Amino acid sequence: AYQKIAHNFFIPDDLREELQRKAEAARQVLPNSALPEVEHYHTLVPLDTNNQRNVTLFGYPSWVYKAVSSKDGKTYILRRLENYRLTNEKAIRSVQSWKRINNGGVVKIHDAFTTRAFGDSSLIFVTDYFPRSKTLAQEHLNYTPSYNRGRPMTNQIPEATLWGYITQIASALKAIHSNGLAARVINLSKVIVTSKNRVRLNGCAILDVTQHDIPRPLQELQAEDLTQLGRLILCLANNNQNATLNIQKSLEHVGRTCSLQLKDCVTWLLTAAPAAPTTLQSPGGTNATPEKTIDTFLQAITTQIINTFDNTLHANDIIASALALELENGRLFRIVSKLNFITERPEFDHNPLWAETGERYYLKLFRDFLYHSVDAQGKPVTDLGHVIAALNKVDAGSEEKCMLVSRDEQNVLMVSYRDVKRMVESCFLELVKGGARR
Amino acid sequence: AYQKIAHNFFIPDDLREELQRKAEAARQVLPNSALPEVEHYHTLVPLDTNNQRNVTLFGYPSWVYKAVSSKDGKTYILRRLENYRLTNEKAIRSVQSWKRINNGGVVKIHDAFTTRAFGDSSLIFVTDYFPRSKTLAQEHLNYTPSYNRGRPMTNQIPEATLWGYITQIASALKAIHSNGLAARVINLSKVIVTSKNRVRLNGCAILDVTQHDIPRPLQELQAEDLTQLGRLILCLANNNQNATLNIQKSLEHVGRTCSLQLKDCVTWLLTAAPAAPTTLQSPGGTNATPEKTIDTFLQAITTQIINTFDNTLHANDIIASALALELENGRLFRIVSKLNFITERPEFDHNPLWAETGERYYLKLFRDFLYHSVDAQGKPVTDLGHVIAALNKVDAGSEEKCMLVSRDEQNVLMVSYRDVKRMVESCFLELVKGGARR
Ligand SMILES: Nc1ncnc2c1ncn2[C@@H]1O[C@H](COP(=O)(O)OP(=O)(O)OP(=O)(O)O)[C@@H](O)[C@H]1O
Ligand SMILES: Nc1ncnc2c1ncn2[C@@H]1O[C@H](COP(=O)(O)OP(=O)(O)OP(=O)(O)O)[C@@H](O)[C@H]1O
Ligand SMILES: [Mg+2]
Ligand SMILES: [Mg+2]
Repeated sequence: AYQKIAHNFFIPDDLREELQRKAEAARQVLPNSALPEVEHYHTLVPLDTNNQRNVTLFGYPSWVYKAVSSKDGKTYILRRLENYRLTNEKAIRSVQSWKRINNGGVVKIHDAFTTRAFGDSSLIFVTDYFPRSKTLAQEHLNYTPSYNRGRPMTNQIPEATLWGYITQIASALKAIHSNGLAARVINLSKVIVTSKNRVRLNGCAILDVTQHDIPRPLQELQAEDLTQLGRLILCLANNNQNATLNIQKSLEHVGRTCSLQLKDCVTWLLTAAPAAPTTLQSPGGTNATPEKTIDTFLQAITTQIINTFDNTLHANDIIASALALELENGRLFRIVSKLNFITERPEFDHNPLWAETGERYYLKLFRDFLYHSVDAQGKPVTDLGHVIAALNKVDAGSEEKCMLVSRDEQNVLMVSYRDVKRMVESCFLELVKGGARR
Repeated sequence: AYQKIAHNFFIPDDLREELQRKAEAARQVLPNSALPEVEHYHTLVPLDTNNQRNVTLFGYPSWVYKAVSSKDGKTYILRRLENYRLTNEKAIRSVQSWKRINNGGVVKIHDAFTTRAFGDSSLIFVTDYFPRSKTLAQEHLNYTPSYNRGRPMTNQIPEATLWGYITQIASALKAIHSNGLAARVINLSKVIVTSKNRVRLNGCAILDVTQHDIPRPLQELQAEDLTQLGRLILCLANNNQNATLNIQKSLEHVGRTCSLQLKDCVTWLLTAAPAAPTTLQSPGGTNATPEKTIDTFLQAITTQIINTFDNTLHANDIIASALALELENGRLFRIVSKLNFITERPEFDHNPLWAETGERYYLKLFRDFLYHSVDAQGKPVTDLGHVIAALNKVDAGSEEKCMLVSRDEQNVLMVSYRDVKRMVESCFLELVKGGARR
């Protein structure tokens, strides 16, 4: 059956709050940090939450810091491999091809260099920073099981989410493989969730440097990428970091909890015959069984790709409307700022021509109307909705009238929002021109 | 070769301005309009720019209006078919299945009904409204040729744009065909461009109603959708509304100006053998040649789909950052509003406790600092950048200090932005509580 589209697949319920939390996380600094500056990167903040030094993946303990570049003021990630000694200059040059990979499913790599800034000899990879990211392991597998009537509740990941991961990573692999590279690390700790249901490959380029002296055929590495993707999804679908220890049993679990299509997909990734290395292929021989390449895989999951694609289009529409709404707020901020520039300027305190006559007098009362209203009981009205509604009418030049009351309550003036708009513009212009001198 | 990703494929250079123009277009009304209300839709505005009544597509002259629903306050499109008489109630019920189609490449259909509001008997389709949309014909084929050294310049559409259209429409057709429907109208005037490079099928559901009494096999209609898509792309690639009059010559032109892949794709769409109608298929017979179905087509263009998919992901990231920035503006608007609520309230004009002492005095001077600064020449500083920078420091609670000068220039107070932040919060809270009475 054609899968139903979840309109908010990529959109968190609290989109605005989440974006604000991200902005905060990006701004966060570490007071009294003893961390060094590394080339032109300063204000390092460590992001590793566990102190376990995992050396199995890269062969070196690695650390992740966010840092600010003094060249462009932007925030980046520095991944540091401790105690790495560069023996061959060519090794680090292999990063050049990675800099060209610009894909929505790959954490972009900007640079790599060695440094003594940490007191040892470290290898540094500079990549894009995505505030508040979590690794797939952190997102899905580090849960404290909650018990439901005595039975442990599993955090079964929805199949739609799994397909979202598969299609995004497949799209990333397409870009990587088409550029003559292999991801080499597709791991629960090296795929990061950067926003709702959105994932990116995070460990790329590293092994190309550290294992530069142990070359392996590209075709083999690329086929292995697909196998690693299969293992990743198997673990996620089983909610178990060790699901690969018993592949048969784990696949059966997938068969019970997910669609047949997902099970077939994982099975293919794990078991398909790798593409015969070109060196072994008989001349002119064609292989009847489909090869284990990213293209074959993409063809097999076209329906799911189209599905994720449509989810992305919907997400675009939703974020664009949210942006349009916020732009309206920006407009209001500019109007109210103009009003503030104009009214109650101290240098005109004793200049009756400026302060108390004509348009500026209206605007002063209008500002009172916006912010200084009191209710029937004389209590201050502090409702931002009133302010926003009134400013929107000013901006739209509405013919509707509002009642302005002088501070001594002796005068009541009726004025249309359209008039207020005109007066704001003309007084502000006068101010900018410096025409209204003491 | 793997196509380079254009990061801004779906993002106009002036994203913010474009969104604002859209908001304006959506608000626009027609003064003194003689157009009727149609059921609960009011404030109709006609969107057809040419007065030619084109009857060939639907068999009836059609009109397009934007209108506001009094039920939800949202703006919709009403398409009116003039002089349509409903003879069979079942005809209009066929729209039910269309209401379920919720795809990023299909203009969503909300309702259909007949009405006498226009004085005749009209058939109305209610759909989503996309401000400032243009039909593909308006976007690409209505150009006034500009001459370049005596030779006419053609507005050749970039191939990436064509692939963008093909993949989006293919994705739309997948959703439509999977739901047992056919688009039936894929036409230069019935595919609309709703934002940069973003297209949607716009004429759906209409023929299912008007030709309800002339049923045709679904498989045939679906195969025809693909042929129509081929004709559409052929016209666009040739920059010529009539390119289908000489298909061979037009295909050759595509071969010269575009990639072989695009030419093959259009050729397949135009010429592939339609799927054999089920009624004619020999029992158990399998067809060796691939059938002309949307699934076969999707498989053939997987690489391009992945490409558009990635463009969409990038667009998402870009719009989300723009939104995050605007949210910061919203924050500033709220702070400055609080400041305005607090300072210079008329009811406290003569209450020295409120107006001139303690925190409120600081805030009054801070507001002067924000908006009423003068430069060395005594000229008003009307720079919004100064305001924004200072408010951001308040919001961030910066330790940095600013210098506040009393209006009589007798007092100079140093205060940190962090203190200002605290004072704004506490004074505003007091105000909300109504604690600061006369
Ligand atoms: N590009 C990035 N942007 C933002 N956060 C990131 C980025 N890369 C990693 N992180 C975050 O930094 C933390 C550490 O990442 P790391 O890759 O070291 O994972 P780990 O769980 O510590 O695995 P390992 O044991 O291999 O070090 C994780 O929370 C991860 O989400
Ligand atoms: N859903 C919609 N949202 C916004 N604008 C739309 C929508 N549908 C159509 N329009 C706009 O309304 C105008 C008229 O559309 P219409 O489909 O009638 O095209 P047309 O060129 O007049 O073709 P025809 O000759 O068949 O009437 C076009 O400019 C189109 O972009
Ligand atoms: Mg780590
Ligand atoms: Mg029309």
